[in-house]
Amino acid sequence: FRVNPFYLHLFYFLSLAFLGSLALSLLTPRVPSFNLRFIDSLYISASALTVSGLGTVEMEVLSNTQLVVIALLMLAGGEVFVSMLAFPFTTIRYKYNKWNHNKVEVELQSIESGSPVIITASDDSEIDELKYSSMKSLSYVVFSYHVIANFIGSISILVYIVLVKSSREVLKRKGLRVSTFCVFVAISSFANGGFIPTNENMAIFKSNSGLLLIVILLVLMGNTLFPLFLRFSIWVLKGLTKRAEFEYMLGRPEQVGFRHLLPKRENGPVAVFVLGLIALQVVLLCGLEWRSDALSGLNGYRKIVVALFEGVNSRHAGESAVDFSVVSAAALVLYIAAMFLPAYTCFLPSGGEKKGGMDKQRNRKGRRRAIEILYLSHLSYIVIFVIIVCIIERKKMRDDPVNFSLLNVIFEVTSAYGNVGFSVSYSCARRLNTGSACVDKAYGFSGWWSDLGKLMIVFVMLFGRVKRFTMNGGKAWRLA
Amino acid sequence: FRVNPFYLHLFYFLSLAFLGSLALSLLTPRVPSFNLRFIDSLYISASALTVSGLGTVEMEVLSNTQLVVIALLMLAGGEVFVSMLAFPFTTIRYKYNKWNHNKVEVELQSIESGSPVIITASDDSEIDELKYSSMKSLSYVVFSYHVIANFIGSISILVYIVLVKSSREVLKRKGLRVSTFCVFVAISSFANGGFIPTNENMAIFKSNSGLLLIVILLVLMGNTLFPLFLRFSIWVLKGLTKRAEFEYMLGRPEQVGFRHLLPKRENGPVAVFVLGLIALQVVLLCGLEWRSDALSGLNGYRKIVVALFEGVNSRHAGESAVDFSVVSAAALVLYIAAMFLPAYTCFLPSGGEKKGGMDKQRNRKGRRRAIEILYLSHLSYIVIFVIIVCIIERKKMRDDPVNFSLLNVIFEVTSAYGNVGFSVSYSCARRLNTGSACVDKAYGFSGWWSDLGKLMIVFVMLFGRVKRFTMNGGKAWRLA
Ligand SMILES: [K+]
Ligand SMILES: [K+]
Repeated sequence: FRVNPFYLHLFYFLSLAFLGSLALSLLTPRVPSFNLRFIDSLYISASALTVSGLGTVEMEVLSNTQLVVIALLMLAGGEVFVSMLAFPFTTIRYKYNKWNHNKVEVELQSIESGSPVIITASDDSEIDELKYSSMKSLSYVVFSYHVIANFIGSISILVYIVLVKSSREVLKRKGLRVSTFCVFVAISSFANGGFIPTNENMAIFKSNSGLLLIVILLVLMGNTLFPLFLRFSIWVLKGLTKRAEFEYMLGRPEQVGFRHLLPKRENGPVAVFVLGLIALQVVLLCGLEWRSDALSGLNGYRKIVVALFEGVNSRHAGESAVDFSVVSAAALVLYIAAMFLPAYTCFLPSGGEKKGGMDKQRNRKGRRRAIEILYLSHLSYIVIFVIIVCIIERKKMRDDPVNFSLLNVIFEVTSAYGNVGFSVSYSCARRLNTGSACVDKAYGFSGWWSDLGKLMIVFVMLFGRVKRFTMNGGKAWRLA
Repeated sequence: FRVNPFYLHLFYFLSLAFLGSLALSLLTPRVPSFNLRFIDSLYISASALTVSGLGTVEMEVLSNTQLVVIALLMLAGGEVFVSMLAFPFTTIRYKYNKWNHNKVEVELQSIESGSPVIITASDDSEIDELKYSSMKSLSYVVFSYHVIANFIGSISILVYIVLVKSSREVLKRKGLRVSTFCVFVAISSFANGGFIPTNENMAIFKSNSGLLLIVILLVLMGNTLFPLFLRFSIWVLKGLTKRAEFEYMLGRPEQVGFRHLLPKRENGPVAVFVLGLIALQVVLLCGLEWRSDALSGLNGYRKIVVALFEGVNSRHAGESAVDFSVVSAAALVLYIAAMFLPAYTCFLPSGGEKKGGMDKQRNRKGRRRAIEILYLSHLSYIVIFVIIVCIIERKKMRDDPVNFSLLNVIFEVTSAYGNVGFSVSYSCARRLNTGSACVDKAYGFSGWWSDLGKLMIVFVMLFGRVKRFTMNGGKAWRLA
C-alpha cells in the first residue's frame, strides 16, 4: 500500500484545475457581454488552485458566483488545507502497519514461548497508540486552526469594513457584496492566494492600514509563520488539557511526521529569518521609495504599513498595494529574490547541526543536501521556462520592448513558479509603436500574452505548486 | 607552516592590480590628449588581471606599451598560470613534512628496535619519492603546456594575418603592430582574458572564420577543456618516455593534488557537458538569429563559426563577435546562465558515485555538497551586488531606462562576477532624453557608470576571481 505523493498531488491539482475552469466558463460573468474565453478560465482556475493569484481578466467582470468558485479553489489549494489531506493516508498506513505487525507478533508467539517478547510488544504498542492518537489530535488541531483562522479573519475584515467608511464606499462603488468580499479576502489571504475581488488588488486600500494589518496577520498565519502559530496553539492546548498527545507532539514532532510541525530548535531560526527578511524589505523599500510615486499620498505610518504589506506578501501571498512598474530596480531585484525563496528558508547557526544522534544528523544532512540541490534545479527550471516564453512571445518582445522586456518576463515566470502572483503591469503609454488601438487593463503582464504563452504560465504555476516533489531532478549534477 | 590559500591569492591579485594600474596611468596613451583617469586604469588593470575583459575606455586609445602591460596582467592572472603558482608551495610543504616525518622515524627507531617499522618506512618513502617527482614533472608539463600554447597560438595568428589580406588591412587601418596584436590575442585567448586591441573586439573579424577558429581552440585549451588537454599531453608523454611519474599522475591524480588533473572517469562527463552546452548554444543562437541583424552579412558557414565562437566565449573568455543589444532575449538568458556556470560544471551519471571506497565517496560527497552550496552563495552575492549597483546608479536608471535597464545591470554584474567580460553596449540613440550631448563609445556598459559604480565592478571582478575560496559562506544555510 504505497502511493507516490507526487502523483497524488498532481492528480489532485490537475483534476480540480480542470473542474474549476469548467465551472468558471459555464457561469455567466457580471458583465454579460464579456466573453470569458476557455484559456482564461483555465488560467484563472489554475492560478487560484495553485494559490498563485496571477490573472488574465479584470476581477470586476466576474460575477459573485464566479468569485465564490475562485474562493473555493483557493481554499482547496492552500498549503494548510493540502497538508491536512495527508492525515487520512498516514492514519490508514499506520493502521495497516499495525495490523501487519500484530500478525507477525502472533506468529512469533506461536513459535516462541518466552514472556519478554510479549512485554516488549505491549510497550511498543503503547507508544504506537500514543503516536496514533497524537496524529489524530494533530489533525483536529490543524483543521480547527484552518477553520478558526478563516472565520476570525472574515469577521475582522467585516468589522473593519463596517467601521471604516472609506473602505465601505469602495465596495459600494464597485458593486461588490460585503459578505463575499470579506470571506474572499480572508480565504485568499490565509491560503496565500493573492486574488482580491477589486481590479486594483489591494492598491485601492493602501491608506486603509488596519485592513492591511489584518491581511498581513492572515498571510503569516497561513504560510511562513504557520509552524510557529501551530506550535503555539499546541502549547496552549497542552497547558489547558494536560493531555499526553500534545506533550508528545511538541517533544517528538519528527515522530508525528507532519511537515509543518518543526523540531523545537528550528522554530527560532525560522522566525528570525522570516521576520529579518521582512524587516530588510521594509527598510529597503522605505529607503528607496519614501518620496517616490510608489508610496505617494500616504503619511509616514501608512508608508511603513504598505512596505510591511509588500514584504510579507512577497513570500508568497502576492497581494499588492503598489505599482511595480514605478518601483525602483533595487527593490524589484529584492522582490525577485524573495519570490524565489521557498516558505521556510532560514539561517541555522552552524553549531546547531552538531547536536543530536548519528541517525538524526544523517537525516538532517540528507534533507539539507536534497534541499540545496533543489535550488539549483529551481534555477535551471526558471531559466528554461524563461527561454521558452521568450521564444513564444518573441514578436511582442521585438515590437514592444519596454512592456515586453526580458526583466518583466523573468519577473512573471519567477512569480508563477513561486506561486506568488506579483506582476508588473502593462501600460499602453509605454509602447513604442502607438499605432494600433490599446486600452489599459487592470490585470497582470501575462494577460497580454498569446494563448500559448498563457498556457505556458498555467503549466509553470502547476509545476511550481508540486515543485516540492521534483527535487530529485538535480541530484545527478556535479559542479566544480 | 600553513598559509590560507585565500589570503595568498587575495594578496597576489590585489598587489598586482594596484601595480598594474600604476603602470597604466604612468604610461602615455597613444592619443596624447586622452586623459586616462586613475579609476579607469584601476578598472582596466583589475579587469585584465582577473581575466574579466570589461573595459571603460576604448582599446585603441592605448599605446603599444600599455597593451603590453595589459597582456602581462592577463598572463599573470590566467587560470593555468595561477594554478602553477601552487607547485612551489606544495613542494615546500612536501619537503617540510618529509623532514618532520624522518625525524619522527629516527626517534621511533631509537625507542624500538624491531625491523618491520623500518621496512614500512622505506616503502612509504619510495612511494613518497615517486609522488614528489610526479609533482615536479607535472609542474614542468603544465609550464611547457602554458608556454607552447601561447607560442603556437601567437605563431598561428601571425600566419593567418600574413596570409589573409582583409585581417591585415584592419590592423593597418587601425595602426596596430602585427607582432603586438598576435601575442596579445594569443595570451588573452589562452588566459580567457577577453581583451582585444581593437575597439570592436572580435566583431571586426567576424568574417575571418579561420582567426575565430584559432581563438576558439586557444580559449578551450586555457579553460574548460584544460583538464582534457593536460591529461592527453601526459598520456602522450607516458607513451614516449615510459616514465613511472606519468603513469602515477594518470592513475592517481588525487594523490598529486593538482586541481586541474581530474580523475579518469570525470573527464568524459566534463567533455560531454562542455561540448553539449556549446552545441546547445550554437543551435539556439543559429535558430533564433539566423536572419536577424546579429548575424547579418555572413554566409551559412561563417554564421555557424560566429555562433560557435560566442558559445565557447560565454564560459568565460568573453571575446565577442556579435552585438548583444540586438541579440534576442532568449539567447541573452542562455548567455546569462552560461556566464553563471563555473568552468568544470558537468553532468555526472548517478551510477558513477557509487563506485570507489568509503573514504573516496565521502570526500566526493563533501566536495559536491560544498559546491552545491557554492551556487547558492554565488546567487546571493550577485543579488546583493545588483542591488548595490541599482542604488548607486539609481539616477541614471530613472533618466535613461532603456540603456540603464535592470537586465543590463544584471548582465554586467554577472559578467564581472564570472570574470566573463560580455557586456551590452550603450547606445545614445536608445536614450529617452536626447537633450544632452552624447557620443557613442566602443566600450562596455559599465564604462558609462559613475566612479563609485566602476569601483563596485572592480570589487566584484576581484571578488569573483577568488570566489573559489568563498564557498564556505553559504554553509550554514538551511533551506526548506
Ligand atoms: K500567491
Ligand atoms: K574573460
